[in-house]
Amino acid sequence: MAETYDVAVIGAGPGGYVAAIRCAQLGLRTVCIDAWQRPDGQTSLGGTCLNVGCIPSKALLESSEQFAHLQHGLTAHGIRVQGVAIDVATMQARKNKIVEKSTSGIAFLFRKNKIEHKPGYSRFVSVGATCQLDVEHDGGHETITARSVIIASGSMPASLPMFPLDGERVVDNVGALEFREVPKHLGIVGAGVIGLELGSVWRRLGAEVTLLEPHERFLGMADEQVASEAYKLLTRDTGLVIRLGAKPSGMKTTASGVIINYSDAQGSQRLECDRLLVAAGRVPNTHDLNLDVVKISCDARGFIEVDDRCRTTVPNVYAIGDCVRGPMLAHKASEEGMAVAERIAGQMPEVNYAAIPSVIYTAPEIAWVGQTEQALKAAGTVYRKGLFWFMASGRAQALGDSRGFVKVLADEKTDRLLGVHLIGPQVSELLAEAVVALEFAAAAEDIARISHAHPTLSEALREATLAALGRPLHQ
Amino acid sequence: MAETYDVAVIGAGPGGYVAAIRCAQLGLRTVCIDAWQRPDGQTSLGGTCLNVGCIPSKALLESSEQFAHLQHGLTAHGIRVQGVAIDVATMQARKNKIVEKSTSGIAFLFRKNKIEHKPGYSRFVSVGATCQLDVEHDGGHETITARSVIIASGSMPASLPMFPLDGERVVDNVGALEFREVPKHLGIVGAGVIGLELGSVWRRLGAEVTLLEPHERFLGMADEQVASEAYKLLTRDTGLVIRLGAKPSGMKTTASGVIINYSDAQGSQRLECDRLLVAAGRVPNTHDLNLDVVKISCDARGFIEVDDRCRTTVPNVYAIGDCVRGPMLAHKASEEGMAVAERIAGQMPEVNYAAIPSVIYTAPEIAWVGQTEQALKAAGTVYRKGLFWFMASGRAQALGDSRGFVKVLADEKTDRLLGVHLIGPQVSELLAEAVVALEFAAAAEDIARISHAHPTLSEALREATLAALGRPLHQ
Repeated sequence: MAETYDVAVIGAGPGGYVAAIRCAQLGLRTVCIDAWQRPDGQTSLGGTCLNVGCIPSKALLESSEQFAHLQHGLTAHGIRVQGVAIDVATMQARKNKIVEKSTSGIAFLFRKNKIEHKPGYSRFVSVGATCQLDVEHDGGHETITARSVIIASGSMPASLPMFPLDGERVVDNVGALEFREVPKHLGIVGAGVIGLELGSVWRRLGAEVTLLEPHERFLGMADEQVASEAYKLLTRDTGLVIRLGAKPSGMKTTASGVIINYSDAQGSQRLECDRLLVAAGRVPNTHDLNLDVVKISCDARGFIEVDDRCRTTVPNVYAIGDCVRGPMLAHKASEEGMAVAERIAGQMPEVNYAAIPSVIYTAPEIAWVGQTEQALKAAGTVYRKGLFWFMASGRAQALGDSRGFVKVLADEKTDRLLGVHLIGPQVSELLAEAVVALEFAAAAEDIARISHAHPTLSEALREATLAALGRPLHQ
Repeated sequence: MAETYDVAVIGAGPGGYVAAIRCAQLGLRTVCIDAWQRPDGQTSLGGTCLNVGCIPSKALLESSEQFAHLQHGLTAHGIRVQGVAIDVATMQARKNKIVEKSTSGIAFLFRKNKIEHKPGYSRFVSVGATCQLDVEHDGGHETITARSVIIASGSMPASLPMFPLDGERVVDNVGALEFREVPKHLGIVGAGVIGLELGSVWRRLGAEVTLLEPHERFLGMADEQVASEAYKLLTRDTGLVIRLGAKPSGMKTTASGVIINYSDAQGSQRLECDRLLVAAGRVPNTHDLNLDVVKISCDARGFIEVDDRCRTTVPNVYAIGDCVRGPMLAHKASEEGMAVAERIAGQMPEVNYAAIPSVIYTAPEIAWVGQTEQALKAAGTVYRKGLFWFMASGRAQALGDSRGFVKVLADEKTDRLLGVHLIGPQVSELLAEAVVALEFAAAAEDIARISHAHPTLSEALREATLAALGRPLHQ
């Protein structure tokens, strides 16, 4: 008879693999089932994030940013270059190598932590004191028995019937990471994080890029002031064309590309492009798990219903990451993965959902944690606001990128920081300080009284808190 | 009769100008006396930091890093460039423009805050309920009367009789910021922060660079493990030649340059170079203030004696920044400036000297806060150590710079973070999180339980805390 695992983890993305590692650290006998295969048929751990998400996109963002910088960023330094060209195949090979290194790193961690990896698709067979999963792989079927199950099956791109993917002209994020040449004109349905990041990549390499966003507001989840500055900079400097309130009504493919009909406030419009990226959100990857058979409840959109401890409607079955409520972020999935592993081991961790950071890796970067100004207004919270523009930062001047600002929002009565919103150079890294501040319930006054190394960009966060307190030093 | 100021601030560097702004914010009638002149005779606020220190060095570091990156950093991305060349005059003009923007920014802040700026040199005439200062400027003398005085007179390069500056072949940091062409071989006396930063600038632009450091240990103030990694990377990758335990015994100038005789463990040595930077530390700028006349005590090296509130031996006279004990850092001076202004206004602020951050802007950067491992050992403190190498960071891989590590030191019994030491990409910015953590007396466990955006370099700090706790996720 097959052994009974303490924990079976479904999915080896940043939710699942982190949960598996933490389970193993806590002495739990752990198996992780994951179906991901590379185009060459090799299994590859790390899920969407490592294979076709965070990591490859950041690799291409870096390459393309360096290329763009050569076009206009060096003259001021007195640096002359000629004959600038990019070989897309080499850029892609670099990206693939980084992905391979990252995913094989997870395989190493699995071996090190004695986590068993079963390639294949999982389906629930039964739940109870132990749960049974059917694992389907190339060679057939296998039954896994485990005392607890963590579902970390992730998400996949939402498919729009109007835009059937053909893997060539009409693609999702996976396809847009793999272009072998720079599109002439890349159309993108959806101006969210994925559309903006991948649009930035190909724009910097020379493509015309037009994003169609059905919503009237740009980056609705971000602070409005940040979104407004981002819109200005991404259209003006990066050269993205962003059509807001653009509702597609149909698509047809032609010999040379794709024509999208859409309507906006000005009436009927059409967009002709040679490639189309459909980036209209993501949906949970839960339909093939046989959840209904074992009475694990999902909501209407397919998200597994969980409480704030990631418990599903079935005892001993947890669900984490993109397949449950909350932001679809790798690090949110990892937090839940760690917490669930510890709960299974009898600990009582908490995930502070109010302090999960968000980043968009455009140029400049956009990052935030906590509440937006519009959310505070809607809630009737009385707040103070402090803004510091990187224009006044010596380090930003020295770097040659002084766009954007740091904005802090603090409770008017208690001075407690409620939200920190950044757009500017390296703000993905500056954000960490803000997250720690929020976790420690810091007041604006606390950060205002903490020494920040000079000259650094992080001084801007302190200056923003000083501004919120009515005593800005450098503006 | 001339008016009596509430506060006279001597010096408009990052100690003095910040003190003056904070005094003005608190309603104090404030004058700031500063003698700095540009080569063209124009007054220029901001002191060493803005004129010939932090800001211009960072501008040149950025330009030279970009130039160096073009030589070897682009191939992996598939980017081809030809005919790379740098025009030093344009690079210097960019630097000068940034300095001018920064210093004129301080002038703007002085006007905005209604701070009077008196150009000239200050000398104490008398102290008492009010203090009198003689200000000497081009047009003659003027007497200033103020109820409190803040001495923020800064520091200047230590002069070594063996190495008389000639402003051409033998220079200090000011001269090494102004080279009009790349030296063939730049010799540097002193492998401290200034020597390493300016050495990096000219090395990246093509100079051979040899640093002579009298101490046997490299970067004695840094954590030994960081210093050792820095030595490896700065010699191997940047190509600096660093001679430790190198004690100069004489110098002679020749038609083509300079010959320095020195001895090290191998015996007598000589270094021939066309330029020599003397960067053998800095000394307080206190000799011309007439301090002895008014019985403001200095120590043997000329530092003004102050207590932990920056009070001198004379009531109502404070001293801050480089001219008093503690690290010669712009932001340390600013902290003291703010605190003294608030004390004069009757508040009771504290400067936490245990959480003043340090940064060296080499490539990779070096940064730390709190205690080094060797200091903990010397004190007999029982500690835990956690290390995370950027090699295992997805963001670092995507950036193409995964050298270095983050190291955390935590109290074995309480888990409180005692020191954080970083070497690697953008660690000058990652440091801010560590400073806030130390200020909040965070435990390693606290940081280990705080969500960090993925993929960011700042995840490395969290991973280091997890490593200190014996449960690393990604290594």
